[in-house]
Amino acid sequence: MGCSKSFYKVLSKNKINLIKSLDLKKNRSSTGLFIAEGKKLVFDLLKSEIVVSELFCTKPIAAELIGHKYDLNIEITDKEDLSRISFLKTTPDIVAVFKIPKSEIDWNEIKANLTLVLDTIQDPGNLGTIVRLADWFGIRNIVCSEESADLYNHKVVQATMGALARVKVCYVSLPDFLAKAKQLNIPIYGALMEGENLYKCDLTANGLVVMGNEGNGISENTAACISRRINIPSYPTGIATSESLNVAIATSIICAEFRRRIICKD
Amino acid sequence: MGCSKSFYKVLSKNKINLIKSLDLKKNRSSTGLFIAEGKKLVFDLLKSEIVVSELFCTKPIAAELIGHKYDLNIEITDKEDLSRISFLKTTPDIVAVFKIPKSEIDWNEIKANLTLVLDTIQDPGNLGTIVRLADWFGIRNIVCSEESADLYNHKVVQATMGALARVKVCYVSLPDFLAKAKQLNIPIYGALMEGENLYKCDLTANGLVVMGNEGNGISENTAACISRRINIPSYPTGIATSESLNVAIATSIICAEFRRRIICKD
Repeated sequence: MGCSKSFYKVLSKNKINLIKSLDLKKNRSSTGLFIAEGKKLVFDLLKSEIVVSELFCTKPIAAELIGHKYDLNIEITDKEDLSRISFLKTTPDIVAVFKIPKSEIDWNEIKANLTLVLDTIQDPGNLGTIVRLADWFGIRNIVCSEESADLYNHKVVQATMGALARVKVCYVSLPDFLAKAKQLNIPIYGALMEGENLYKCDLTANGLVVMGNEGNGISENTAACISRRINIPSYPTGIATSESLNVAIATSIICAEFRRRIICKD
Repeated sequence: MGCSKSFYKVLSKNKINLIKSLDLKKNRSSTGLFIAEGKKLVFDLLKSEIVVSELFCTKPIAAELIGHKYDLNIEITDKEDLSRISFLKTTPDIVAVFKIPKSEIDWNEIKANLTLVLDTIQDPGNLGTIVRLADWFGIRNIVCSEESADLYNHKVVQATMGALARVKVCYVSLPDFLAKAKQLNIPIYGALMEGENLYKCDLTANGLVVMGNEGNGISENTAACISRRINIPSYPTGIATSESLNVAIATSIICAEFRRRIICKD
């Protein structure tokens, strides 16, 4: 890729239309592209294995990028032009188009580590928050059912705050994935109402943690594959107050407990 | 209040305008009213001390309400009319107008229990999620700085999923509140980067837990009042990945740990 620098070039209508069309999943699928905005997020993604396609940014940001010796396809432009391609309320200094990576399950990684499995998470904000907290807790793999919210939805990408650069997300047929995991004797944890108290059950350092849909929880077929049912106790225990926790909140409490066990053993 | 039942009455334009105007904080403040929608949420609120002003619902829901012998001002209407006053994408069977309660600090309650203190939480979704998780963890009081998101914002009310009925939220001058708490020797915990490992520090059963703004964290003045600085360790510890956790996620992990200590002692 060359480094085409043209100052304050006005973006072509075709380019603006292409970028704006990436709002829809069908267009992301057909082009294999997605959008990321803002310096922190774009710079995080540039450091990752995700391949950049085009960058649109202000002159000072371009100077920083060139300083870092990236071999990039940069178009220097102004805020007015950037506002035409940005999906954000406040126009950022950089908008980038990345190629959607082909993520595949690495069973050796899955066997040795903690992995989140999302059974039809529908809210883009929840998915973004879960990717971000996975990053915090050093979880490198998230496996989603095919019906889950799309990771490359603009809102999800922004909500990950750059965690997308460090956490691999795969979309799979969940029954097939879980059957294979069972075959390999990987512990399969799941958050279920009738589960064992999270704080009193054995937790392994590796395994799958299955989290369910916002309204319906874990589906019946998926639940049948869960070998270790866990439950987050409310307080005071046994008194019903809230009926449930938000799925991202529940995920964070479970991940924190898995990690606490290791941290407190050290 | 009487029970005025009129079948499929068309809502007056004035009434529709009044209800729609409650979208704005200034109108909620001047009228002292807020909106809640959907059966689960409205029924939860009807069980609470929050006073209902008007109810608009379909005939089957009205029958249930009358069956419960509530002495309510019910207007029976149809889905078409409800869609005119609803803020939701899917029109609910019930829309209710409630009076904003005058919440005041009860220092005896604060002294004896765990309380969340929110220093300028700005995102309505985060505030709603925090009220919901407080309910799960049996936290009955949340104290917000005056600059925080408004609890009676329609999005917050819906996001609490009914927890609003069980958790008291007060807006106060935070410096005055914290000064008084200090005087009363109430432990003041705060989530700060340089804090002690959450899992290794002493946690009391009572106290304040201060959480900071989404972008800027806890303000300098507030931080000066914090006597017990705590930090949620990332994993692997010491390796910087994500720069931070979402504030609702961080709040949930801290609340879970406070409660775990008690649950595991029993």
